[in-house]
Amino acid sequence: MAAAGGADPDVVRGLFAQQTGYATPKVDVRAAIFQDNKVLLVQERSDAGRWTLPGGWADVNRSPSECVVAEVREEAGLEVRPLKLAAVYDRGRHPHVPPYAFHIYKMFFVCEALDGLPSPGIETADVAFFAVDKLPELSVSRVLGYQIERMFAHANSPALPSEFD
Amino acid sequence: MAAAGGADPDVVRGLFAQQTGYATPKVDVRAAIFQDNKVLLVQERSDAGRWTLPGGWADVNRSPSECVVAEVREEAGLEVRPLKLAAVYDRGRHPHVPPYAFHIYKMFFVCEALDGLPSPGIETADVAFFAVDKLPELSVSRVLGYQIERMFAHANSPALPSEFD
Repeated sequence: MAAAGGADPDVVRGLFAQQTGYATPKVDVRAAIFQDNKVLLVQERSDAGRWTLPGGWADVNRSPSECVVAEVREEAGLEVRPLKLAAVYDRGRHPHVPPYAFHIYKMFFVCEALDGLPSPGIETADVAFFAVDKLPELSVSRVLGYQIERMFAHANSPALPSEFD
Repeated sequence: MAAAGGADPDVVRGLFAQQTGYATPKVDVRAAIFQDNKVLLVQERSDAGRWTLPGGWADVNRSPSECVVAEVREEAGLEVRPLKLAAVYDRGRHPHVPPYAFHIYKMFFVCEALDGLPSPGIETADVAFFAVDKLPELSVSRVLGYQIERMFAHANSPALPSEFD
């Protein structure tokens, strides 16, 4: 790369070395909010109008639960409280499409809605509740149907142990 | 940086851009293994002989539980099975010393020993079991005494909900 770009090899090497020491998987957070046996989903602007649990990349300045609170606020207009860390999935172990070259750990929180009216944000076209057995077309890069079913099980059985890969 | 190093600014910019899109907190994993009310600790070569729960940076090619299994194998010579994801702590919310400029999520697993005799690895000087109320000097960059106590509580009360920040 240094040869191709005409850059000083030592500089290029140094930039990579900064990352090498602790290059760990990326972290994604997701919120599962249930009301009357329905789950809150947001419609993505970026994936042909498909739906997902609100969430996104963990922010380097926030704790895991703060990240999920911020994502729900931005994408669904709701204030929520994370009740349970229900699962930490390794994205590569689940049939998400497309597969990614980089590794991602996905933290799923069951949350309760505190305040606000569901309303879309900049990245979302719509927000709605859906029966867990009548889900719309999902953004399968972000979430899979059986993961939502697992979250529903956790919401109904808080004593279920947190899942991990 | 490009000016100082004499590198092509576009190359330098490109290297950083690769990281910017999804810069999320780093992930560290830790294993808590108890036998006869004692906890397994490893003595770090790199921190003045202080002790810690075995663990380290999550590996980009492994799931969370695979990471912790690999770390215990490398640092303590034991084969273990992760039983419970007991906590995901945000390092910045706990009084670790020194504080770090970058953000870290620390995943703590309660594990059971399956096989092997405790023996140190390349990065560890010694491996031993300690009573939870008689811990040696800890490598407080990596683990804090009350975190080990929390893991002991989780090992004794598997139904305790997983903790998160």
